[in-house]
Amino acid sequence: MEYALPTRRSDNFPQWYQCVVEQADLAEESGVRGCMIIKPWGYGIWERIRSQLDHEIGRLGHENCYFPLFLPLSMIKSETDHVEGFSKEMAVVTHHRLTVIDGTLGVDPGAQLDEPLIVRPTSEMMVGSAFSRWIHSYRDLPVLINQWANVVRWELRPRMFLRTSEFLWQEGHTAHGSHDDAMRETLSILEMYNSFAEGVLAMPVIAGEKPPHERFPGAVSTFSIESMMQDGKALQAGTSHYLGTNFARAQNIQFQSATGENCFAHTTSWGASTRLIGGVIMSHGDDDGLQLPPRIAPQQVLLVPILRGQPSDEEVLRFCDQLASELRQQSVFGEPLRVKVDQRDVKAVAKRWQWVRRGAPLVCEIGPRDVAADTVSFIRRDQLRSDDKLRFVTLPRAEFRATVRAALEDMQSALFSRASERMNRNIATGIGNMRELREFFGNSDDESARQVGWARVPWSRPDGDASADILAELKAMKVTVRNAPMRQDPIEQPCIFTGRPAVERILIARAY
Amino acid sequence: MEYALPTRRSDNFPQWYQCVVEQADLAEESGVRGCMIIKPWGYGIWERIRSQLDHEIGRLGHENCYFPLFLPLSMIKSETDHVEGFSKEMAVVTHHRLTVIDGTLGVDPGAQLDEPLIVRPTSEMMVGSAFSRWIHSYRDLPVLINQWANVVRWELRPRMFLRTSEFLWQEGHTAHGSHDDAMRETLSILEMYNSFAEGVLAMPVIAGEKPPHERFPGAVSTFSIESMMQDGKALQAGTSHYLGTNFARAQNIQFQSATGENCFAHTTSWGASTRLIGGVIMSHGDDDGLQLPPRIAPQQVLLVPILRGQPSDEEVLRFCDQLASELRQQSVFGEPLRVKVDQRDVKAVAKRWQWVRRGAPLVCEIGPRDVAADTVSFIRRDQLRSDDKLRFVTLPRAEFRATVRAALEDMQSALFSRASERMNRNIATGIGNMRELREFFGNSDDESARQVGWARVPWSRPDGDASADILAELKAMKVTVRNAPMRQDPIEQPCIFTGRPAVERILIARAY
Repeated sequence: MEYALPTRRSDNFPQWYQCVVEQADLAEESGVRGCMIIKPWGYGIWERIRSQLDHEIGRLGHENCYFPLFLPLSMIKSETDHVEGFSKEMAVVTHHRLTVIDGTLGVDPGAQLDEPLIVRPTSEMMVGSAFSRWIHSYRDLPVLINQWANVVRWELRPRMFLRTSEFLWQEGHTAHGSHDDAMRETLSILEMYNSFAEGVLAMPVIAGEKPPHERFPGAVSTFSIESMMQDGKALQAGTSHYLGTNFARAQNIQFQSATGENCFAHTTSWGASTRLIGGVIMSHGDDDGLQLPPRIAPQQVLLVPILRGQPSDEEVLRFCDQLASELRQQSVFGEPLRVKVDQRDVKAVAKRWQWVRRGAPLVCEIGPRDVAADTVSFIRRDQLRSDDKLRFVTLPRAEFRATVRAALEDMQSALFSRASERMNRNIATGIGNMRELREFFGNSDDESARQVGWARVPWSRPDGDASADILAELKAMKVTVRNAPMRQDPIEQPCIFTGRPAVERILIARAY
Repeated sequence: MEYALPTRRSDNFPQWYQCVVEQADLAEESGVRGCMIIKPWGYGIWERIRSQLDHEIGRLGHENCYFPLFLPLSMIKSETDHVEGFSKEMAVVTHHRLTVIDGTLGVDPGAQLDEPLIVRPTSEMMVGSAFSRWIHSYRDLPVLINQWANVVRWELRPRMFLRTSEFLWQEGHTAHGSHDDAMRETLSILEMYNSFAEGVLAMPVIAGEKPPHERFPGAVSTFSIESMMQDGKALQAGTSHYLGTNFARAQNIQFQSATGENCFAHTTSWGASTRLIGGVIMSHGDDDGLQLPPRIAPQQVLLVPILRGQPSDEEVLRFCDQLASELRQQSVFGEPLRVKVDQRDVKAVAKRWQWVRRGAPLVCEIGPRDVAADTVSFIRRDQLRSDDKLRFVTLPRAEFRATVRAALEDMQSALFSRASERMNRNIATGIGNMRELREFFGNSDDESARQVGWARVPWSRPDGDASADILAELKAMKVTVRNAPMRQDPIEQPCIFTGRPAVERILIARAY
């Protein structure tokens, strides 16, 4: 069978991924290392993600605002603990002017900044300094804010969407009067990310707490949602941090309590990024390209007129336009159906395959025979092939119209079920000791070992030397502890690392 | 009479402006020169502007995408003509890592970039290089794209919203097969900005073409919308450029025509920014703070419960919540009414004044007496005072509910009418020579001269030496040619600069 992509998942997963990014018109290299151009179809997906996630963030009482792109170096210095753990790969602005020197444009040596500026890798420090001005009394709390912004973390080995030097994200920052309030916020955001990933991206995730060595620098607790990609690796798709009073102490975020005492605020931060698009690709894509959950598809129904340079073309176009406007009057997932008529002067079969590669949920081809019979022939992207053939379904127009909504809803949940079953099937739960763990992940240089999935193993939360030894072992296996899932059954087995009584199960995996 | 702001417009307009920005909680200094923090109320206004303008941009067939924050220096060099005219005040990234040196965090001298990166002052060059990859055939045209992004132009004398080193904007970029198509695009965008400013921001503008010396560097024609602020100065609120084939030649954007010839594309670009918020402030604000056109108010109706720490408080809150949910079921300007109950533990009178300063259209105060009588007492922000008193109106709840929508629509058009009358009243049309022009603008150091408004004068489009002399004269008067309005009556007077027959009238003004 011939597939639409030159590379198959089973042959070379990383290359297949690059192939989808390119062939689905999602993004391309910009010529600036690690910075990508997000093309209209890719950005349309991001806009759908952003608007729906933004709605959830707002519903929980957060307000959007905007903090500067640049941080003064001195502000980063003040956050020593934080910076210790944080990567120091940041873009540094040192000059503010270009000039022509000997006929060539260059950096003006006379325009050096007194203090270098850092392009924000995250805004904790800038937000913290604002919080210290905004917060005076318990009456000012909680402060619940969010921003949608670009951030920069220099990447030496960039990969589109997954690891880019510049990326787009939302970062939430909140301040509360007590540990309990801040922890409630941290967990309610984790729960929001969980339902968003599953409900909107159709991407099953496991929410849990990160072990100490995987915490955000300066955080007291870090929680994440982790999703399994088709190659068995884990993708961290969102994190939520309880920062205790660590940042409040460093930045003097104090308030007077109802009883008149001066207290440090408890803060949180949390984020999700364009990396989610990478997760969608690797959760749902196949050897014919992307498959988009209808909730985030920039267009849900594509109408491709079959034009032949004949007078009948006009009727075909009229039929398409009319069908499109009928469909647009319907709603799905609480929004009007997104329908596009692809009128470009390109062969219908080429347009069909372009929309297949792009992952459009329903692709309809309309020719003179459909007009005559008042029918619609369509492909449902997640049911593209049946044996060796493309699976076209032809329905009377009225019936098509009446079933579009259900088809999109069904595709949304079918994508989730498929990914969910795959994830559950590929989490090994019977591993009882280190030898079995090593066998499970196999030789990390072995190509086939990439598809093994995750291990869920009992763990005693060792610390100190025991912990360091375990980390070294895991590192040698090229795996990491992803998280300790929130939902835990009672546990009786011993910790596979220490043999001591286990307190919980953790997920171990190779990861992006 | 006591006003809500410490500074009055008539005393010191620039200081009044800063005062509104601060007292309406729009934005604040960040500690990084020229970069502001846009606070939730200010950012909420931007979100409303963005979503409505984005809708119009999309309706005209443009697709959003995202281009990188950084441009390589070499890409800027390739655009010599463009850069010649463009300010060279740009933020330059020279290093990609921090490091600890002698116990202090600093820039790692070993992490210098091979080629400096420029933080985008605009994306023409990056987009152009993408267009040269995307466009091959006439079938690929037009390409119509837009992006919402942050850009940086180093400002030595920054002013919140009006002139900041980092600002937020949309930039549209399009490529077409012919001069006519590209010019049609340029003008349809100008028209879109015009109706958006007037219809959504209630800000009257005059659309016209810039004279040659005011064109965007590299453009063949530049068009703008100009609005008159309350101090009589002009604010350029949006620009649309026809770039001819200049950028296409510099960046090799070529296509094969239907007849097989290689042609350069005709491109356009156009933008509007957070500067629009400055325009809204200076168009509608008064000595009590901001007045927001309801279409862009983050909240349109504020319900302020009068709480007394008594059992009746609960009834008051219940009344407010119920009223809020009744109101939210209504629509205005095609969207659900935006209503907020301000439950903060702060005195009602303090809350009232905060919302007045913030420019919320309708501010209601609800106390136990209103609950008992089933009434609502409210202030309409643009009719705040009557003689010396606040103008509270009290209506039965059902009547209030039934009139809210009309009140908001009326306020939207009242703000426009008021600003429009002021603009028309302050455009002098009878100036016949240079002496009169000089008299009109008066001594530029004279404080009172700031309020004079604009001059509309006949002009012969002089060029060469004549043009240079005129520019020098205008510069001495601290005024500039804003544009030649699109709507022109027949003209018989001579050019006031050259005495030759005039071809059109131009607007001359002091400007932001």
